[in-house]
Amino acid sequence: MRMLINVPETVVADALRGMAAAHPELTVDVERRVVVRRDAPVAGKVALVSGGGSGHEPLHGGFVGPGMLAAACPGEVFTSPVPDQMVRAAAAVDSGAGVLFVVKNYTGDVLNFEMAAELAEDEGIRVARVLVDDDVAVTDSLYTAGRRGTGATLFVEKIAGAAAEEGAPLERVEAIARRVNERSRSFGVALSACTTPAKGSPTFDLPEGELELGIGIHGEPGRERRGMMTSREIADFAVDAVVEDLRPSGPVIALVNGMGATPLLELYGFNAEVQRVLVERNVPVARTLVGNYVTSLDMAGCSVTLCEVDEELLRLWDAPVQTPALRWGR
Amino acid sequence: MRMLINVPETVVADALRGMAAAHPELTVDVERRVVVRRDAPVAGKVALVSGGGSGHEPLHGGFVGPGMLAAACPGEVFTSPVPDQMVRAAAAVDSGAGVLFVVKNYTGDVLNFEMAAELAEDEGIRVARVLVDDDVAVTDSLYTAGRRGTGATLFVEKIAGAAAEEGAPLERVEAIARRVNERSRSFGVALSACTTPAKGSPTFDLPEGELELGIGIHGEPGRERRGMMTSREIADFAVDAVVEDLRPSGPVIALVNGMGATPLLELYGFNAEVQRVLVERNVPVARTLVGNYVTSLDMAGCSVTLCEVDEELLRLWDAPVQTPALRWGR
Repeated sequence: MRMLINVPETVVADALRGMAAAHPELTVDVERRVVVRRDAPVAGKVALVSGGGSGHEPLHGGFVGPGMLAAACPGEVFTSPVPDQMVRAAAAVDSGAGVLFVVKNYTGDVLNFEMAAELAEDEGIRVARVLVDDDVAVTDSLYTAGRRGTGATLFVEKIAGAAAEEGAPLERVEAIARRVNERSRSFGVALSACTTPAKGSPTFDLPEGELELGIGIHGEPGRERRGMMTSREIADFAVDAVVEDLRPSGPVIALVNGMGATPLLELYGFNAEVQRVLVERNVPVARTLVGNYVTSLDMAGCSVTLCEVDEELLRLWDAPVQTPALRWGR
Repeated sequence: MRMLINVPETVVADALRGMAAAHPELTVDVERRVVVRRDAPVAGKVALVSGGGSGHEPLHGGFVGPGMLAAACPGEVFTSPVPDQMVRAAAAVDSGAGVLFVVKNYTGDVLNFEMAAELAEDEGIRVARVLVDDDVAVTDSLYTAGRRGTGATLFVEKIAGAAAEEGAPLERVEAIARRVNERSRSFGVALSACTTPAKGSPTFDLPEGELELGIGIHGEPGRERRGMMTSREIADFAVDAVVEDLRPSGPVIALVNGMGATPLLELYGFNAEVQRVLVERNVPVARTLVGNYVTSLDMAGCSVTLCEVDEELLRLWDAPVQTPALRWGR
């Protein structure tokens, strides 16, 4: 087990302590497992709250800050956070303008956020929810009924977060989040399995020289297993899967995402192939983001997410954001 | 070979094409292998140029932009760029105020930047050079006479880059770069070897359950090999090695760096232990940066770099920077 940890039981708490030390601009409640932007609640503004299992960093804690999430709730590795965390986060960030829960489509997360929404409403907090389900690889999976939520989470959190930062009311922020999800599709590829601290061995068996097409972010099975492919071939397969499902008629934002252990050198090379396929398919690319954003522990591999944008969504994407993992503008 | 590539021969060119597509704010000359900030040359300002073997991304190309490098020259994987690239970069960014070459201490880089400096001066460009040699693990190594240059490169490029951006003259920018290097020390630990595309197999043999203390960024041997240690034990060892050599009397900036394949979840947990040791050693920490910044392809592991700062260096660290991999301020 090649892990930089103490014991599996403290991995999440240790990471939160380390995050607190590195980011004084965040309030990190290590014991209760809530990460909050320090200036919350922000008067008059809707607050986005997300969360999910740990092991996908920087998602979600790394996306907390002005212009994106108001708070994040990290669960145990690959395990949903509990409703208590979500209610606490909602209470910490609600200014009275309401809270939007951004929920990736995994059964545990869906149920827990649903319960949290009821509990928060009992406390007088207005709550809306948006489900992210962008992964075209499979319907129904190990942890999901319907499509899995993966890379589009970043788009939903960034774009709806910008709308909230501008002062849009809850119904409008929710509608924008929904629009972003509806216009986003993802496809992922694993070159190696990942290893959870608790298990200490790979979550599935992927022999040297093979890859898994359509993998999820928890080592769930994909569409099919094949012999090793080139970057070019993988881009053809992944982008085609996304484009055929999304059928964009306008420009897209492209996220070329690493699963955690794939070097940036390779990700940039893969991006060149992704861009080539998009040109061949006549899909104009308005913006591109390359890096490790929605990861799966130490898995090697990549995913492609496309989000079809209109002028408003693109403007909100370009709006300033100040979080540990995404930062631009002032 | 679990790599997201086409063929080993095109890895660097492919990555540069992908980088060009993702970063319209940079000018990427794929054929000649030079990455330049788009607004260069900037009138009246000193320009920093760095470079080195590829495989350490985001170093150096990801640090090109306002407030940091004016240009970067990527070599083949783990191989120095050639003088031609450096001269071309210098000519592209020199405004007449001169160029500072930031050179990691590896024999090939040192010789090539030396020759490039002579050639550039023949073309009428004023060139100064600063050598980065911060790694306390070993003196003399596979590719180095003296100490290796590793994590401190980020500090030198950021802090001297900020001085250049403010309009400091060449001698002053050079002196600041030298001061940053003299006040910085690093120590790295490998939990796995890395695999170069050309070789296709790990650069050294590190059995499961062992780690290498004092590793370089090319898989060079370290100080010693041990059975697996906890995050806590590794932090004790690495921080002690750095602090005993640096003997800081004032506050430091801490870089807790991943070698490429170690998840951010683990890096943050490791940072908690690094911060604990620093408290125990009475070393105040002014700023902390956690992430994959000076990597070694797909190596799992981490390094700690400390830079002792005075008020001026800290102010320059905090100054705005706008590059693909480091961004803050306006």
